[in-house]
Amino acid sequence: MKKKSRLLDQPIEPFVVDRDLTAEQLLTRMERISFQGRSLATAHRVWQRMLADDVTIFLGVAGALSAGGLRLVIAHLVTEHLVDCIVSTGANLYHDLHETRGRRHYLGSPQADDAALARERIDRVYDTFASEPEFVENDEWIADFTAMLEPRPYTTREYLYELGGHLWRTTGNEGILTAAYRANLPIFCPAIADSSIGMGISQTRQRAPAHGQIDVIGDIIESTNLVIRRPRTASVVLGGGTPKNFINQASVQAAFYSPDVGGHRYALQIVTDVPHYGGASGASLEEAESWGKLAADAARVTVYADATIALPILASALASSARPLLAARRRPLFTLASRVMTIDGQTVSSDRFEAVNESAV
Amino acid sequence: MKKKSRLLDQPIEPFVVDRDLTAEQLLTRMERISFQGRSLATAHRVWQRMLADDVTIFLGVAGALSAGGLRLVIAHLVTEHLVDCIVSTGANLYHDLHETRGRRHYLGSPQADDAALARERIDRVYDTFASEPEFVENDEWIADFTAMLEPRPYTTREYLYELGGHLWRTTGNEGILTAAYRANLPIFCPAIADSSIGMGISQTRQRAPAHGQIDVIGDIIESTNLVIRRPRTASVVLGGGTPKNFINQASVQAAFYSPDVGGHRYALQIVTDVPHYGGASGASLEEAESWGKLAADAARVTVYADATIALPILASALASSARPLLAARRRPLFTLASRVMTIDGQTVSSDRFEAVNESAV
Amino acid sequence: MKKKSRLLDQPIEPFVVDRDLTAEQLLTRMERISFQGRSLATAHRVWQRMLADDVTIFLGVAGALSAGGLRLVIAHLVTEHLVDCIVSTGANLYHDLHETRGRRHYLGSPQADDAALARERIDRVYDTFASEPEFVENDEWIADFTAMLEPRPYTTREYLYELGGHLWRTTGNEGILTAAYRANLPIFCPAIADSSIGMGISQTRQRAPAHGQIDVIGDIIESTNLVIRRPRTASVVLGGGTPKNFINQASVQAAFYSPDVGGHRYALQIVTDVPHYGGASGASLEEAESWGKLAADAARVTVYADATIALPILASALASSARPLLAARRRPLFTLASRVMTIDGQTVSSDRFEAVNESAV
Amino acid sequence: MKKKSRLLDQPIEPFVVDRDLTAEQLLTRMERISFQGRSLATAHRVWQRMLADDVTIFLGVAGALSAGGLRLVIAHLVTEHLVDCIVSTGANLYHDLHETRGRRHYLGSPQADDAALARERIDRVYDTFASEPEFVENDEWIADFTAMLEPRPYTTREYLYELGGHLWRTTGNEGILTAAYRANLPIFCPAIADSSIGMGISQTRQRAPAHGQIDVIGDIIESTNLVIRRPRTASVVLGGGTPKNFINQASVQAAFYSPDVGGHRYALQIVTDVPHYGGASGASLEEAESWGKLAADAARVTVYADATIALPILASALASSARPLLAARRRPLFTLASRVMTIDGQTVSSDRFEAVNESAV
Repeated sequence: MKKKSRLLDQPIEPFVVDRDLTAEQLLTRMERISFQGRSLATAHRVWQRMLADDVTIFLGVAGALSAGGLRLVIAHLVTEHLVDCIVSTGANLYHDLHETRGRRHYLGSPQADDAALARERIDRVYDTFASEPEFVENDEWIADFTAMLEPRPYTTREYLYELGGHLWRTTGNEGILTAAYRANLPIFCPAIADSSIGMGISQTRQRAPAHGQIDVIGDIIESTNLVIRRPRTASVVLGGGTPKNFINQASVQAAFYSPDVGGHRYALQIVTDVPHYGGASGASLEEAESWGKLAADAARVTVYADATIALPILASALASSARPLLAARRRPLFTLASRVMTIDGQTVSSDRFEAVNESAV
Repeated sequence: MKKKSRLLDQPIEPFVVDRDLTAEQLLTRMERISFQGRSLATAHRVWQRMLADDVTIFLGVAGALSAGGLRLVIAHLVTEHLVDCIVSTGANLYHDLHETRGRRHYLGSPQADDAALARERIDRVYDTFASEPEFVENDEWIADFTAMLEPRPYTTREYLYELGGHLWRTTGNEGILTAAYRANLPIFCPAIADSSIGMGISQTRQRAPAHGQIDVIGDIIESTNLVIRRPRTASVVLGGGTPKNFINQASVQAAFYSPDVGGHRYALQIVTDVPHYGGASGASLEEAESWGKLAADAARVTVYADATIALPILASALASSARPLLAARRRPLFTLASRVMTIDGQTVSSDRFEAVNESAV
Repeated sequence: MKKKSRLLDQPIEPFVVDRDLTAEQLLTRMERISFQGRSLATAHRVWQRMLADDVTIFLGVAGALSAGGLRLVIAHLVTEHLVDCIVSTGANLYHDLHETRGRRHYLGSPQADDAALARERIDRVYDTFASEPEFVENDEWIADFTAMLEPRPYTTREYLYELGGHLWRTTGNEGILTAAYRANLPIFCPAIADSSIGMGISQTRQRAPAHGQIDVIGDIIESTNLVIRRPRTASVVLGGGTPKNFINQASVQAAFYSPDVGGHRYALQIVTDVPHYGGASGASLEEAESWGKLAADAARVTVYADATIALPILASALASSARPLLAARRRPLFTLASRVMTIDGQTVSSDRFEAVNESAV
Repeated sequence: MKKKSRLLDQPIEPFVVDRDLTAEQLLTRMERISFQGRSLATAHRVWQRMLADDVTIFLGVAGALSAGGLRLVIAHLVTEHLVDCIVSTGANLYHDLHETRGRRHYLGSPQADDAALARERIDRVYDTFASEPEFVENDEWIADFTAMLEPRPYTTREYLYELGGHLWRTTGNEGILTAAYRANLPIFCPAIADSSIGMGISQTRQRAPAHGQIDVIGDIIESTNLVIRRPRTASVVLGGGTPKNFINQASVQAAFYSPDVGGHRYALQIVTDVPHYGGASGASLEEAESWGKLAADAARVTVYADATIALPILASALASSARPLLAARRRPLFTLASRVMTIDGQTVSSDRFEAVNESAV
């Protein structure tokens, strides 16, 4: 037989089962198997490389992850500085607030009788139940809180920082919003109007007409400036949706204003959508490169898996493997307590695009 | 053999191929086959029932449908009054504007070399290409337009009406935005900040700092009041995303304020996402019932298919089958040219929730 | 703006809705839209090109298509010579036999109470019901038929030809098996043991121990020789499964014995599985090229859609568009009524691989 | 607020990240989250319950699991007696044989240039490569082995036992076939004709015309009798395909002959297909109940995930959690070295269906 192709140089190593394998050991053994098992193991390595490099790590959070029991995983990513900035759907923040306020979601069944649930005022999210009266009461709580803010437009970043602070002071409970508040980590929620947080805010106007103004256009400017200020970025996306696109558009828009921005240096997505229907949630990272959302040489990996399987394993593995990296990490430092945020001591306007970035200063 | 179960009463009728079958005939023959073929045929019937009843029909538009060649199908649905109100992602309106302004999208390939595309400044959406310089120029056009508006917050509904008008006056071309403008049909875009329309608006502030304010919270109130004013509604959803949820939340929020609101009477969704990962895009219409998004006795159907296959067939079939229904249809009439819209002559506030609805007047 | 890239030369033409569009007109208008709509329109063109060329067209049939109302579409493809050879799962042939024998499948619901169905002895296939006692009686009918055959091994090709003949003589009804019998079109069923046809055959042995022998290894040899004899082939695959692989393996195995075999010249698949889990059903046609299953320059298209939507449209369009091609088509002619089949007058052994093929004779 | 519904009794417990969590601890913490994370944790519990009960556990293996690095996980399930009988696609056994014979599969990329791979005679399975010349040589090795067997029909169960023995004696290497041989665990391969093992067998006839006969109808009878002899069964399915159906049909067919058979008592499937296209691979376990494939009170769980993620975690967790259960387990004992196998000392015919079962003896 003739000499083997150089393409056949790294053999698959079959996974060997052992007792008491840890999450990190599981993923290490999955690095040289195939398909999505390998992708998940690769995601572990790509995230480590992000942490070892000097990049701002965006986390996109879509899907019913908070209702589904992953809110403390995300809080952990925040507290341990595995990510630097969150872009979330409103629902994930709302269901986080619900539990931080001491309420619960419940084990349910996808075969439940929905007419019966409706009569009992129980809302279903696939296999998970929640109390609608408790949700109604949350909305009122949000309306009350919003009425206490100044009667002026807030970016979602500023609003959610204040919301996290209020939650922390009134409950002392851990969650995404409270962890981000305590860690001074910005959260953007570009589609806040499409969520129960938005519904709560809208109810503020009934009692306090000048309140309840959200400046989502300011969020675009601020997130863009954040990239301009610190142009080396990475993207971790859970589930696609508006967060995936918003993280990418910040990079694209920043490149209009600053030649130093060249797309994310690292990209990791855990999605269940597929590319062939053309939707943004399922779009491949290769396609993202054509738009300049990704640098040409970006390390990238797509994991086709439910985040409720992939994220607990990945985060648990990183809890061990990333410790030395986190100790050495140079991460961005924010102040968030006003209309104008700062990053590493520099202001980040939400009113006009910056002309210069960190590397040029 | 014992008497047959009453569950076995309607036999499958195998599809019989014939020459020159029309779209309507295709769907009629698919009514008694199985799986998604039957679902698509059922969708045809459910939409007809919506049109025969006295309901306000919401259309949700997500996925890259405009870039993908369906914008004139949606414009047709608007012009022919097959729907009454659109909730869209920003991308679908942006790509519509792009073509209405005379630019094109192009046939491409999913196997394209994305690094080469990036060098040529071509953006890829699966199998479809577009020119990035043309997109940059669109953004500037949007910024210019936005600077001409009054320096005050606009709901997306008001903003998009003005945008449609400006497009119509400057191009005279058909499209979603121009068709909606001419038909006085409202468009909401709750996640406008997550789109190139939002990016264009954000650039306005660079030149005209007081401009480029979007009041997405006002959209929540207005869409809710629209349901309160005319509580019998139907939902046609293409692709899930923020439009699907926004249409449902309007119904849920309206029920807080008005006992006459009881969820959509009809629901039809064409989606590719699945329920079992818990995300809202794939959520079943059964689940929607538990939330009160759907009436208990709502006619409903989910079609698991790419809208680029399902919608051309469905719209073409309705072009024949719905004609008598459209002639007799009692549809809502809007005025949209100011901060306060009207429906059937009654104002619809974007500032506070209405206490009474049409049926109580 | 600089000169446009040559990659941007064929614009998307938005689909325009009209009344009374036929299936062929629908697909023609879908040729220049995007995503799976375009793929379906491309499938129409690729199938036409197969018919215009001198190739043997294999049809793979998997999924519950017969139970789901598509058996007469497949019979139509056979009768009108749009395909030349079928590879099917056993289930599709069994459910075809069920209806050809005058029994029916029934409209059901995916939300049915399966415990109640089990008590009533109703079997459910997603949204379709059938009577279990009728299935039991089919199995006995198959056992009776099988006992009438000679006590020797039969390839599935020979067995299914005899079964089709018996069905035709006893019922005179149209279906896949009877159409193939009448058109002298071979059907292979490599996984017959994994089906109710296999179960019926197995029951023959209880009464006639020397009967009920199926030679599936003979099927491999015969299908390979069929490709060796007529090495220009095309593949139309519905749903993946064993038929997809069997059609490809015939091509790969034939290439071992004959240098004139170079993979399918055309490949069209309508599937719902995706490539990224590594399974054969979802494997891409690009991947197939690496194995030599496809010629390097093969015209190919994958349509990601449920066959119950895609096939009725495609077959209806071809009923018009393919007529001139069918009149001129040079198709293979088979005799099937014995252990040794012939193609175009030449024998096709099921015992040993042929050394020469048509082009060398 | 009124008293809470009894449906809201078991709260979701958010997953808490910790260092050094083992696979078992991961799954324990995932039991009270949502969606497929919970399903995977439930699968862990259902498998434990199978092991604690007195049932015969069938394992169905479809998808490219052996090529993809899971063959030693499956060998582990065999060796440790976590399953009692395997039903596999031919491909999984073929790729197992390939590695047991000392050859390898290789890390590749889904973006590979397939024309270049074809020129280098490298076969691609999504992200995994293999040498085609090595595959050709395997086929010859299989043909040589098959020529050494007696010139009579073999069930796949008997054939694969002999194949495993020959592999073990000539290589001494671990794998699925050799582990099953050593553990006296039967393997069925109903679709053997649709695989490279079948291709290898077919080549035997070229040199030894009386050899290479496979009796797949005998497999149906034998697998049915196996259920009749020991009517309490469980089903673990990886990936759907022919194994899923074959395991179910054995149960259905056995119920024709024996009233003690009432469907699987436990069912666990890890699949990526969905129910709504009607195919058997994606069929729900609820649907299976209507057919009597599952007992009405069967413990059941579907995990929608790639097996290359789910199985390594599940098997690793069971390596710890199942130890006490395995020590106490009463499992079936087979002899496999002839045309007639035995289970627990009783013969299991492949020629005629048994009238009595274990519980009646």
